[in-house]
Amino acid sequence: MESLIHRRSIRKYQDKEVDEQLLRRLLEQAEHTPTMGNLQLYSVVITRDPKMKKRLAPAHFAQPMVTGAPVVLTFCADYRRTTLWGEQRKGHPGYDNLLSFVNAATDALLYCQTFCNLAEEAGLGTCFLGTTIYQPQAIIDLLELPPLVFPIATITLGWPDEDPAQSDRLPLNGIVHEEVYHDYTPQQIDDIYGPKENLPENKHFVEINHTDTLAQVFTDIRYTAKDCKAMSEELKKALHHQGFM
Amino acid sequence: MESLIHRRSIRKYQDKEVDEQLLRRLLEQAEHTPTMGNLQLYSVVITRDPKMKKRLAPAHFAQPMVTGAPVVLTFCADYRRTTLWGEQRKGHPGYDNLLSFVNAATDALLYCQTFCNLAEEAGLGTCFLGTTIYQPQAIIDLLELPPLVFPIATITLGWPDEDPAQSDRLPLNGIVHEEVYHDYTPQQIDDIYGPKENLPENKHFVEINHTDTLAQVFTDIRYTAKDCKAMSEELKKALHHQGFM
Repeated sequence: MESLIHRRSIRKYQDKEVDEQLLRRLLEQAEHTPTMGNLQLYSVVITRDPKMKKRLAPAHFAQPMVTGAPVVLTFCADYRRTTLWGEQRKGHPGYDNLLSFVNAATDALLYCQTFCNLAEEAGLGTCFLGTTIYQPQAIIDLLELPPLVFPIATITLGWPDEDPAQSDRLPLNGIVHEEVYHDYTPQQIDDIYGPKENLPENKHFVEINHTDTLAQVFTDIRYTAKDCKAMSEELKKALHHQGFM
Repeated sequence: MESLIHRRSIRKYQDKEVDEQLLRRLLEQAEHTPTMGNLQLYSVVITRDPKMKKRLAPAHFAQPMVTGAPVVLTFCADYRRTTLWGEQRKGHPGYDNLLSFVNAATDALLYCQTFCNLAEEAGLGTCFLGTTIYQPQAIIDLLELPPLVFPIATITLGWPDEDPAQSDRLPLNGIVHEEVYHDYTPQQIDDIYGPKENLPENKHFVEINHTDTLAQVFTDIRYTAKDCKAMSEELKKALHHQGFM
């Protein structure tokens, strides 16, 4: 997994298809990812049709990767297939609840990440779109997802046409805890985030966002309390609509 | 990622430590996994102390891997560190909601899966414990997880001391949809699950569970509607307790 060490999100892609055989091989190999009770509680919707990409884009805040990538993959938590199987085999499935959603979302996300690891090893570029759960109902409608199927991750995929710098990460000590969670002191917060705050690219990021601190770019501009609260309500509504709540 | 092709869950481990340097290197490399806004909304609690493993085991239904593995890793959705950072930097974090839980859980799960892929490439064996969200409050208490931190995945890790057969997976056509979700016909369900149902190991599995069908082992014994519903309530309570609901 050499590719991981140099890994960057790729947002610009060459005007070159991703071979169907290659895509299927990677999706198939990724199936070896662990899954709850070997049930594989996920599905993937492949978007290649430019018209569909154009219709998907607004649900992802019109990020240009959606229409610019040769392939868009929507990974879904899927308890429907298992439920249909159970019903067809004299079983009594009952997965219309939050636990089952989290179980299926877990399966889908683990599968998605192995797929990305594999795709990047093959030289492809990916970008993970966190927007998938911001307006899930729009995606559900567009991809015609039935009950007990929920979009949880979207990946744009293609051959890289850019060579961006790798983004920084926190020191490992900032995320690891021995035996129990040792809550962070103010000094530790300074130590963990200090190097990140001092990077020229992050200082520039603060400047163009007109905030005093880097943290404020996230807490007060990109992921505000108000937006998170409002989108939580939409998420709950969509979970209810799909039968998971 | 050759190891993935032959990947199996490993539940028995050699009586041999996982070198601390190696563990830290893998955890650090896995940090290159994509993360929302580069916030890294996760933490990992490392359990090596046999007393802690013994105390953790009941929360995982006493699965023997928990006490038998040299290392147990609990991956947590973590919005606390980011919140403390924001508060300490004049920001206004507001992540006490379901959307933020799902965002952080996503970050934690993607990170966890890259870690597993790396660990297996290094020859280590892993077993993913889906039990983590079945009794989350017990894990929260034991690992002393503060508000806005939630256990979402547990991995047991060590050098393999068994060579189990690889488990089957569904045919790729069973999980992939082109452009929109094409709902499954009864014939398709038969086609997708038939090969699995006909495997000798799965026929044996049905026999020892005294059910008529393989699906019933899951729907009527292992993951019953009643249990899922009850555990959903516990999950909601724990999410509420940790400030995510």
